[in-house]
Amino acid sequence: MNYKEALIKDLEIRRSRLQKAMQKSNIEACVLTTGVNVFYMTGMIYNGYYFLPCEGDPIHFVKRPEGVAFDNTIYIRKPEQIADELQKRNIALPKTILLETDVIPFGECNRILSTFKVAETANASTLMRKIRSVKTDFELEQIKACARKHEAVYKLIPSVYKQGMTDVELQIEIEKLMRLHGSIGIFRSYGENMDIFMGSLLAGENAESPSPYDFALGGAGTTPALPLGAAGQRIEKGQTIMVDMAGNYSPWMTDMTRTFSVGKTLDIAYRAHQVSIDIHNQIMDMAKPGVGCAELYNIAMEAVVKNNLELYFMGTKQQAKFVGHGLGLEINEPPVLTPRSKELLEKNIVFALEPKFVIPEVGAVGIENTYVVTEGGIEKLTILEEEIIEL
Amino acid sequence: MNYKEALIKDLEIRRSRLQKAMQKSNIEACVLTTGVNVFYMTGMIYNGYYFLPCEGDPIHFVKRPEGVAFDNTIYIRKPEQIADELQKRNIALPKTILLETDVIPFGECNRILSTFKVAETANASTLMRKIRSVKTDFELEQIKACARKHEAVYKLIPSVYKQGMTDVELQIEIEKLMRLHGSIGIFRSYGENMDIFMGSLLAGENAESPSPYDFALGGAGTTPALPLGAAGQRIEKGQTIMVDMAGNYSPWMTDMTRTFSVGKTLDIAYRAHQVSIDIHNQIMDMAKPGVGCAELYNIAMEAVVKNNLELYFMGTKQQAKFVGHGLGLEINEPPVLTPRSKELLEKNIVFALEPKFVIPEVGAVGIENTYVVTEGGIEKLTILEEEIIEL
Repeated sequence: MNYKEALIKDLEIRRSRLQKAMQKSNIEACVLTTGVNVFYMTGMIYNGYYFLPCEGDPIHFVKRPEGVAFDNTIYIRKPEQIADELQKRNIALPKTILLETDVIPFGECNRILSTFKVAETANASTLMRKIRSVKTDFELEQIKACARKHEAVYKLIPSVYKQGMTDVELQIEIEKLMRLHGSIGIFRSYGENMDIFMGSLLAGENAESPSPYDFALGGAGTTPALPLGAAGQRIEKGQTIMVDMAGNYSPWMTDMTRTFSVGKTLDIAYRAHQVSIDIHNQIMDMAKPGVGCAELYNIAMEAVVKNNLELYFMGTKQQAKFVGHGLGLEINEPPVLTPRSKELLEKNIVFALEPKFVIPEVGAVGIENTYVVTEGGIEKLTILEEEIIEL
Repeated sequence: MNYKEALIKDLEIRRSRLQKAMQKSNIEACVLTTGVNVFYMTGMIYNGYYFLPCEGDPIHFVKRPEGVAFDNTIYIRKPEQIADELQKRNIALPKTILLETDVIPFGECNRILSTFKVAETANASTLMRKIRSVKTDFELEQIKACARKHEAVYKLIPSVYKQGMTDVELQIEIEKLMRLHGSIGIFRSYGENMDIFMGSLLAGENAESPSPYDFALGGAGTTPALPLGAAGQRIEKGQTIMVDMAGNYSPWMTDMTRTFSVGKTLDIAYRAHQVSIDIHNQIMDMAKPGVGCAELYNIAMEAVVKNNLELYFMGTKQQAKFVGHGLGLEINEPPVLTPRSKELLEKNIVFALEPKFVIPEVGAVGIENTYVVTEGGIEKLTILEEEIIEL
């Protein structure tokens, strides 16, 4: 089976999952318009509305680009035309619809609702994220291919480091390596307050700076217009450099963090780093379908407490309250590994585990890997030396 | 006056503009939550809600980061706490509020409305975009500083070009130059369907590929997950390379396009390029406060028709229906230079003018400059050789 055939088959699986969920909730139609969900359902991005009844074929209401080749493509200029076009074809307007209410703006959502003369909408954002969290074999293959490139770039990091560099200068060298290995540049995140450029590199005390954005760690950034990550400071001897750059070499992503140091660093940094590795190993031993995500968080937290590292765990001045997250087309998908999570691991969920510590004046330590949940356990997808790598 | 004092003074000007507009429309309070508008009003980005009554001081309802130093900062976890906190301080809840309804999601907007027990909201998105379109002197200084870096990077482009490169490889070299000159990487655009990474580089026939995104030109991109811009094809002799990479060297941006060619290219390409330059010169002669934006579009279109270039103007398979746009904190601000625009130029509006042509099999030609509207005319901010630059 070639790539195109495999994709078509996979799109059928995805559509069938969504339609089954719609039927279960007595939803007559779903209208998707965000890039990520349109891509997930069609294999491409168009500007318009993917209309899926609970049974049968979708209709593609497209504004742009010209020349979309699907069956059932109808060109429109505005959402108000959707209802007219359906009626022209004697298709009854749905009485219950799913819209991406957690993402699409208030104004546009109301326009779509009034087009359908429907007062209420169920939440397609949550449902699509739930469906997308369990990967198909086709998606897993892309994630694995992405992991190989992610590893290849990280292996080259020591070769681009030069003594006396700033954190931003080192990041720029890594960005170039990423692009030459096929990184598409942007990577998509879900929700507001998730601005980021190609990933995060944190060196020295900058790792302590709290950020407004909802990532594991912060960093001051170089401008108040993007207060995150590397801050333009010279990397000094004894500091650690945490590299958490995007794994966006395929539409389905990987997430991986490795820690480097300039010369030797402090004992407490090595100790905390080893606790991060131990947490990974412990979770690899027990995680499997049916295990609660809160349990994974608790295992991490127990190790942290046992080692008296609470003050450094997931930040100092501001501490993130999770140790991992699902990922795929977006970098932050369900499940989230938090103490209050009610989600359970399921086969083919892909998640990143990132127990990290920030050691004042030294920098951040710890590792992050991407795992897939298998029949009886979890499998590590990002395979690369895990110790602190001395530069 | 140092930078910090100038910023504080400028923030007062911005706030006073917003409050005057609110008073004029009998709006009692405004709640802003998007990064761009929070940054515009406060000089920083926080995750939370900027609450501004129509008179008096703002209150900052902050979720993250820790340690925000404004007067009147109240830490909250969710928008429902805003009303409680106001009531605790004996501040009457507003009966009319402005929310960013064109951007913030349906779900969140409804949560804020029910917090205030208000059924309706006026549109803060449109109002803020209108206010932001007229720049203060402080903003103009930043735009001018940005232009100097934008020019410096473009001057270096011939030095990084190597024969036999692909479009993506050349773009990667330019991206690195940009980052080394202080580009913050991401640049912000308004609305859905505006995904882009650091800008657009179009070489050869790829310039004809239509894109789902709402930019002047398209390009196929390297993946269906980001169908825009360079496509990974080798740049051939006789082709043109249109470089429209981001001018994001300060929070307030510039927009500039220059065209390069590998050796000589076709006569029609030189001719169309000259028409683009002529349009710029014609518009520089007549544009000033009070001139309609539609008039600018019409001047461009008349020159295009007179030269029989309609089939190539702003694309071939898909043609954009504008020749320019305002810009600032976002790359697409009002006004938009379209045939139906009712907007007039005003002093201190900053806009980019980009009459471009796509010549089949050759590539895109034309230039883009950023201008500021002055007392009696317009001033060009992006100053660099305008002819096609031979590589």
